[in-house]
Amino acid sequence: MKDIYAELISVGDEILYGQTLDTNSYFISAELDKLGIRVKRKVTVADNQEAMMRAFKEAEDNADIIIITGGLGPTKDDLTKPLLAKYFDSGMKLHEDILEDLRKRFAKRGRELNELNKGQAELPEKCTPIENKYGTAPGMWFEKEGKVFISMPGVPKEMKYMMEDTVLPKFKEIFKTPVLIHKMVKTVGIPESILAERLEEWENNLPNEIKLAYLPGLNQVKMRLTASGEDEKYLQKLIDQEVDKLYEQVGKYIYGTDESNLASKIGELLNEKKLTLACAESCTGGYIAHLITSNSGSSEYYRGGINPYHNDLKINVLGVKKETIEQYGAVSEETVIEMAECVRELFGADIGISTSGIAGPTGATKDKPVGTTWVALADGKNTQTKLYHFQFDRQSNIEITSNSLLNLVRQTLSSK
Amino acid sequence: MKDIYAELISVGDEILYGQTLDTNSYFISAELDKLGIRVKRKVTVADNQEAMMRAFKEAEDNADIIIITGGLGPTKDDLTKPLLAKYFDSGMKLHEDILEDLRKRFAKRGRELNELNKGQAELPEKCTPIENKYGTAPGMWFEKEGKVFISMPGVPKEMKYMMEDTVLPKFKEIFKTPVLIHKMVKTVGIPESILAERLEEWENNLPNEIKLAYLPGLNQVKMRLTASGEDEKYLQKLIDQEVDKLYEQVGKYIYGTDESNLASKIGELLNEKKLTLACAESCTGGYIAHLITSNSGSSEYYRGGINPYHNDLKINVLGVKKETIEQYGAVSEETVIEMAECVRELFGADIGISTSGIAGPTGATKDKPVGTTWVALADGKNTQTKLYHFQFDRQSNIEITSNSLLNLVRQTLSSK
Repeated sequence: MKDIYAELISVGDEILYGQTLDTNSYFISAELDKLGIRVKRKVTVADNQEAMMRAFKEAEDNADIIIITGGLGPTKDDLTKPLLAKYFDSGMKLHEDILEDLRKRFAKRGRELNELNKGQAELPEKCTPIENKYGTAPGMWFEKEGKVFISMPGVPKEMKYMMEDTVLPKFKEIFKTPVLIHKMVKTVGIPESILAERLEEWENNLPNEIKLAYLPGLNQVKMRLTASGEDEKYLQKLIDQEVDKLYEQVGKYIYGTDESNLASKIGELLNEKKLTLACAESCTGGYIAHLITSNSGSSEYYRGGINPYHNDLKINVLGVKKETIEQYGAVSEETVIEMAECVRELFGADIGISTSGIAGPTGATKDKPVGTTWVALADGKNTQTKLYHFQFDRQSNIEITSNSLLNLVRQTLSSK
Repeated sequence: MKDIYAELISVGDEILYGQTLDTNSYFISAELDKLGIRVKRKVTVADNQEAMMRAFKEAEDNADIIIITGGLGPTKDDLTKPLLAKYFDSGMKLHEDILEDLRKRFAKRGRELNELNKGQAELPEKCTPIENKYGTAPGMWFEKEGKVFISMPGVPKEMKYMMEDTVLPKFKEIFKTPVLIHKMVKTVGIPESILAERLEEWENNLPNEIKLAYLPGLNQVKMRLTASGEDEKYLQKLIDQEVDKLYEQVGKYIYGTDESNLASKIGELLNEKKLTLACAESCTGGYIAHLITSNSGSSEYYRGGINPYHNDLKINVLGVKKETIEQYGAVSEETVIEMAECVRELFGADIGISTSGIAGPTGATKDKPVGTTWVALADGKNTQTKLYHFQFDRQSNIEITSNSLLNLVRQTLSSK
């Protein structure tokens, strides 16, 4: 079985000028990947004859499947259709059925077709039209010496419909593709370089069928394993074996795989142990609560949270002692301990967590520079604390504090 | 003045496989556009020697500026640095100052450099390093016959820092580009199609120097005006005139321009009127608090918030009447009214706001489908409420509820 390669061409000035984020090629990549078709390259070009013709030629030389999005509107700056006709040396043909369909759809909205719209029913003779349920420009399917060219509109909803309704089912029929299996292994609390060092020998001994990629983020590193070959069962076994080895070697940093996130993992652990959580956030200002409640079903284990931004609320609503804050300040170990213990009690949760820090850019003092952050976790028996010195901007300080505290919750629950 | 062209190269299997959305090239495009540098093409290639070397060559033939992101990590699958050294036929050089800086940064976190990290201080002789404040891989700046090659990490935060701190300022110095003035006008609460219809005549009469782009989001539409030419003063005047016209025609939907966000606008209004805010969030689970506290200085006007996820906390901590929840349910007008009034009182704020809804995908009842959402605003005299029926996924329902309630706060404060 030979590998099937695709190249994606996005057409449009708006993408090149940074006015539109190209989510089309992201969607198409992921869908092709599921079928085992490898996207070899993506190119974005301007609405410009020379650039587009060159992109068609390069893609044809490079891939088996060429998917073009954009440039299919009814106006003059939309060049994809005339240029594909030129590229395939094809005359144009009016599709009466498409015209009739357009006429009906316009009539429904009480409108008549104008010349521009009528033109959309004219397509290169050498293509098969692809139905566009949500718009007026049909897609086009060309075949040439075993290679397939697909052209679809740039409007995401129209493109998605065509992919799901026509393109992907036809690809499944035509192409025999290798089996691809992906596994994402997600770690927290270990930097990429240390992780890679610890795993060097394992990586060097990976079976030839498996490729590895590191995808780093804020205090998190994801590892993507991809197995490719012909025998799905065998590949799945290979992947499972390697994931087992990863758990053996760096298991304490792994919080989950594939779709799971750190907060959902904590949810699983809490459910498993029938425990509940509440949080008192100062510097993270609601972000931890947001991460937790972004997961459906979080009401099972999340009691609620409070972000008493002002000290009087830490005292009067949450119950921190006035003297503690006066003596040690809001950003102190003593204060986060009381915050975690108080929220645990006030909210009737098994575990209370808290944050207090200087997210910046203002608020620093001589002893406490921006990024100074205390967090605490109270479980009714012990209260743990951690002190961090982050050096990011406000938003990232908030994120990494949240990730770090959630990781502490994970570690604590895992060892219970 | 000749046009300056750029080509962007994103390196990474994870983009081609549809696992990572390429927001880097979107950001870079927009930033270059502001400088009047035209992005001619974007290419995404695999972590693969042949594909990368070909991309370098094509880009060099095609553009004046070549910007490469990704492939700079310390691990084996990161090829950008060795391949650029090969492309420029350059030996490697250890930068002692970078090594020393890495060592210090590691020491601060109580860690030692390993071999992989040390390798990051080694760069091709022919490049100038670009400082990476947020990560361990320096960027690289090459020049060759008037063309500039830039290589930066794929981690968005690190790339952005390098762009803003080094790359863009240097481009401004080196390249003489036309004067470009951008103004972003931000609206909330009006759909793009209606906004465009209202502004049709205005848009048709825009001066030739000004280009308009609509950038729609969740309940928000941004309009970007771009003036280009040679006379900065004249262009600024043109832009100001058109922005004035926008305020005349759709001013009540405009919440700000350029860097402002909806929550920071509310902060301004609260400061102006010397008022404070507190929020009680059920379905938005901390997200509104997060939006508010993401703005530095929010402690001036934000008292704090609570997200009593469970009904007993709405009753026992926040003070909603038990009978109200029993009779009308948590997702009801009666409950959000009490939540807003209670949080206002409990947190000692001038204005209290609240949310309760079914974010989904679970939790729907016969009368209350997913997306049913109540919000309230209490100012001590009146309590306003709004009912929405959103039809998005969980995350988007949370976002649009937050935006809608913040817009209600904005409207209320603006009319005070």
